[in-house]
Amino acid sequence: MRLDHTAAGVYAIAATPFTADGRLDTASIDSLTDYYLGAGVTGLTILGILGEAPKLEAEESLAVTRQVVKRAGVPVIVGVSAPGFAAMRWLARNAMDLGAAGVMIAPPPALRTDDQIVTYYAQAIEAIGDDIPVCVQDYPLTLTVVMTPGVIRRIFENHASCVMLKHEDWPGLEKISRLRAWQAEGALKPISILCGNGGLFLDFEMERGVDGAMTGYAFTDMLVELVDLAKAGDREAAHDLFDAHLPLMRYEHQQGVGLAVRKYVLMRRGAIACDAQRNPGSSLTAAARAEVDYLLERLARRDPRRALAE
Amino acid sequence: MRLDHTAAGVYAIAATPFTADGRLDTASIDSLTDYYLGAGVTGLTILGILGEAPKLEAEESLAVTRQVVKRAGVPVIVGVSAPGFAAMRWLARNAMDLGAAGVMIAPPPALRTDDQIVTYYAQAIEAIGDDIPVCVQDYPLTLTVVMTPGVIRRIFENHASCVMLKHEDWPGLEKISRLRAWQAEGALKPISILCGNGGLFLDFEMERGVDGAMTGYAFTDMLVELVDLAKAGDREAAHDLFDAHLPLMRYEHQQGVGLAVRKYVLMRRGAIACDAQRNPGSSLTAAARAEVDYLLERLARRDPRRALAE
Amino acid sequence: MRLDHTAAGVYAIAATPFTADGRLDTASIDSLTDYYLGAGVTGLTILGILGEAPKLEAEESLAVTRQVVKRAGVPVIVGVSAPGFAAMRWLARNAMDLGAAGVMIAPPPALRTDDQIVTYYAQAIEAIGDDIPVCVQDYPLTLTVVMTPGVIRRIFENHASCVMLKHEDWPGLEKISRLRAWQAEGALKPISILCGNGGLFLDFEMERGVDGAMTGYAFTDMLVELVDLAKAGDREAAHDLFDAHLPLMRYEHQQGVGLAVRKYVLMRRGAIACDAQRNPGSSLTAAARAEVDYLLERLARRDPRRALAE
Amino acid sequence: MRLDHTAAGVYAIAATPFTADGRLDTASIDSLTDYYLGAGVTGLTILGILGEAPKLEAEESLAVTRQVVKRAGVPVIVGVSAPGFAAMRWLARNAMDLGAAGVMIAPPPALRTDDQIVTYYAQAIEAIGDDIPVCVQDYPLTLTVVMTPGVIRRIFENHASCVMLKHEDWPGLEKISRLRAWQAEGALKPISILCGNGGLFLDFEMERGVDGAMTGYAFTDMLVELVDLAKAGDREAAHDLFDAHLPLMRYEHQQGVGLAVRKYVLMRRGAIACDAQRNPGSSLTAAARAEVDYLLERLARRDPRRALAE
Repeated sequence: MRLDHTAAGVYAIAATPFTADGRLDTASIDSLTDYYLGAGVTGLTILGILGEAPKLEAEESLAVTRQVVKRAGVPVIVGVSAPGFAAMRWLARNAMDLGAAGVMIAPPPALRTDDQIVTYYAQAIEAIGDDIPVCVQDYPLTLTVVMTPGVIRRIFENHASCVMLKHEDWPGLEKISRLRAWQAEGALKPISILCGNGGLFLDFEMERGVDGAMTGYAFTDMLVELVDLAKAGDREAAHDLFDAHLPLMRYEHQQGVGLAVRKYVLMRRGAIACDAQRNPGSSLTAAARAEVDYLLERLARRDPRRALAE
Repeated sequence: MRLDHTAAGVYAIAATPFTADGRLDTASIDSLTDYYLGAGVTGLTILGILGEAPKLEAEESLAVTRQVVKRAGVPVIVGVSAPGFAAMRWLARNAMDLGAAGVMIAPPPALRTDDQIVTYYAQAIEAIGDDIPVCVQDYPLTLTVVMTPGVIRRIFENHASCVMLKHEDWPGLEKISRLRAWQAEGALKPISILCGNGGLFLDFEMERGVDGAMTGYAFTDMLVELVDLAKAGDREAAHDLFDAHLPLMRYEHQQGVGLAVRKYVLMRRGAIACDAQRNPGSSLTAAARAEVDYLLERLARRDPRRALAE
Repeated sequence: MRLDHTAAGVYAIAATPFTADGRLDTASIDSLTDYYLGAGVTGLTILGILGEAPKLEAEESLAVTRQVVKRAGVPVIVGVSAPGFAAMRWLARNAMDLGAAGVMIAPPPALRTDDQIVTYYAQAIEAIGDDIPVCVQDYPLTLTVVMTPGVIRRIFENHASCVMLKHEDWPGLEKISRLRAWQAEGALKPISILCGNGGLFLDFEMERGVDGAMTGYAFTDMLVELVDLAKAGDREAAHDLFDAHLPLMRYEHQQGVGLAVRKYVLMRRGAIACDAQRNPGSSLTAAARAEVDYLLERLARRDPRRALAE
Repeated sequence: MRLDHTAAGVYAIAATPFTADGRLDTASIDSLTDYYLGAGVTGLTILGILGEAPKLEAEESLAVTRQVVKRAGVPVIVGVSAPGFAAMRWLARNAMDLGAAGVMIAPPPALRTDDQIVTYYAQAIEAIGDDIPVCVQDYPLTLTVVMTPGVIRRIFENHASCVMLKHEDWPGLEKISRLRAWQAEGALKPISILCGNGGLFLDFEMERGVDGAMTGYAFTDMLVELVDLAKAGDREAAHDLFDAHLPLMRYEHQQGVGLAVRKYVLMRRGAIACDAQRNPGSSLTAAARAEVDYLLERLARRDPRRALAE
């Protein structure tokens, strides 16, 4: 189960469940893993930005990896972004030893020029070893690092171990078309492209040719169904499903407060026991919670299969 | 028609129409103004960021102001944000002489601390004169300046001429509730709050207590209807209408390419003759145009009154 | 007197003198121009960042240009950086009509990728016309735009009208060596490189092969002498002179407060009547003024020719 | 040896020595510690930004702490800045157990508003425990977080365990005067202020009332002497000494390449065996090395006691 360019479907960006007093909630790690598997994911991505990875101690990161990999039975990508390469290497090699399928690396915010970005990935891959499959995260909104299609191509052509792009540029549809066009011309090797950005453009991203989604929208089962519909070419059904969820996806996509919404919905769907975050975290006011509840009610009317149990 | 804190309803953020070769399209300025008026706006905001204001020569800015004010018959707010106070003063005073209702001022991106922001508005208002009604623009996503509710309160309490907040923080719902709570406690004077951000949260922003919208979503008539429904307390109808438009609003909200979508829709609705932008601008690829067309078709099914004429 | 790649020596970045109540001080514009000419400059650059250009109205910018060009008798470069190309074109073409030798263009802070920077200069030159000599300003510390040597080469190779680089990257010595090496290999056309950054590395920048300085350090005559010593190969004398001034140069180089120091020294040397800035500006506290006075005293001991008259 | 507000003199920002192949150089850790002690420092700060802290694995950070604390015999401050509080707490508590005198915490770059900064320190101190003495690092140039004097006061007044400010704002002289004035008025508790910024303004910072230096300029003995001269009121001698070193300090202060200069000088002075950095690192070209050598020669003439042995 090593990650390669054929990866497709939905890789859920997994939340990291904590107890109300801030400890890792190992029971919820299991139930959340089961929740994702039950939704039909083809893989999992743990310890990403939304997984509150920087808030874990080093040993905790390994503990989460060990537990999820053991239970999942699907490929698990481990986020290893770190301020330095020593810590990145340590986590990457340990995660692979524990059975991870690959690692995800985001660029640090200080990078500016094309060459700086390309060099960073070269150094990162030298640090972790070129035998570990890598997913490159392209997320300018949060990371402030802007990768042109040309930069992405240079990174993937330079490194055989780079096999997947987590695409969450915004706007990003033309970037997908450009990369796929290069592949069609033989100017770029085959790579897997999974889309993030909370799923906010997944309807059209699928149509532009991506392989699936890698995001943490709490209705994981809907993502799986949407990807299937899109691949089956059932355009209207895909958009109908997408549109039904867009009001909530949009609400969940708010920077900062988004994770609180996501964990709250996961809790309401029974996937985790508690929606607490570690500091610095966000939480929902009573007004926000009522708004999410209202969105859930409306969603249940348009997509009854996703109604919450009373 | 001077702007004051009772302003409500929809102030359309007006596009600036150009011909294909980059000249101001004066005929389209008239037809676009008529389009907004026909939609039922209570006011207009011209020369904002989306109005490509920085791309106009000084005299062109005045020409646009003169033409719109003369035709509109509703209050017109003029964006006067500028890198220096001399140019800001020049445009502000000239615009008021031409009959503008007030001016809108955004903070320059370099501001960081609370005091820097408060001081900036003090200097700006000293520069333009404290007799000109001011709308404060709070738009962190683009401007990178983050104003706490406390900073906003300081600005409005310091300056009697500050009467309106263009709210487009993101996330921003709690900020609205905080400001309205202060007003209820008598800790903040009455101010008008109109929401931007492409309307992406207008459904809940209305419920949090804002007075209306100030955004450029191309279906201006829908914004007017939504604000009316929300004010009438018809929650379900408001959300139904909002949800029907959200897929397009979301597409239009993309940074960079958003204005191209907006101008394209305005052109397709007959409000302007040409969707060209001045450099540096964006344009739609064939694929993007087809996506917008598809969204317009789908919208017409859910909200038939907004169907495009064939 | 059109700017070309043979430009060398010292181009003073000219301050813009204001009266205490904020009007343009036309008498001081003349005396300051004379001050620079008396120092032996080969050219002048007006309306740069330190010239408080964004604080001028459009007509004021022309007035300053007209007055300086008429009096100077040396090439005058006019800063035309603007948020939009319409204003940039307007000022550039008017400035050239008034006899300017060329224009200087800085990239706007939002640019990130290599291609964005290259495209920006292409659009700017298309806007102003390719018949106007251009100085490209490379100033990451303030502008946050990072240009690699490769990007600079692309810009200069794309545009015959680009003839000069205002180099103020920091650190930037290796960039100079890289560009000069490319020229030696025939991989880059001849260009003039003048250095800014307050002169803080001018000692070694000259040794790396630049053509001179373009900065506003208030002892312009020292810059001229330093450049001459460096060109004559008198290394020790050049460094001795440089080191004598470094304590003041360092003090003057402080972001924000630096211009206040510079104008204060220019006032004390009799070049301008008043050291006021327009808002938003900085001013010296009594403590800071005393520190500058102390530095001037110490400087006079090490470089007696620059002693202030009592 | 717990850190408190009486701390004064020079706390050297310690480099972290590596071997050419990137391992921790434990022999050089000892020799470098001895070098600092021989220079007369009153304390040491390890694992700061210049100490390449983010490039160490967690266990390596502890190993360095253990070794330095054991040998130093002076208070050792440990940099514990981290992307998350779990890692920060882990390092802080372990470092204190090993005998550290206190910890240094820098704000993460994403913080913008006054309240965000104040809240961050509250959460950090809650995480590590309020029994650990804290040095607050104020370094906008690199961290992009701007703290007003008022914010600094709030942090220090909120937390008894905050006892020291590492001041490296730039410009920052007025900030020092403001804080000291508040203390004189009883509006701020006693705090220790040590200055960083490569020492580039240490001459005047001492005169504005700081307690000493916390920086890594490679001539640590000169820093100690300068602080002593300033405290003794020997102004001319202090400035003469400072001015002799300023050309090198300026060269060493270059962002990015500065650490390479510093380690090179430490190596040439015999304090460490190798000037290698871990990736991402910088290194000196032959031209840069020759420039540093030349600066060292010139320094030796003006300050013969700092001549390098042949």
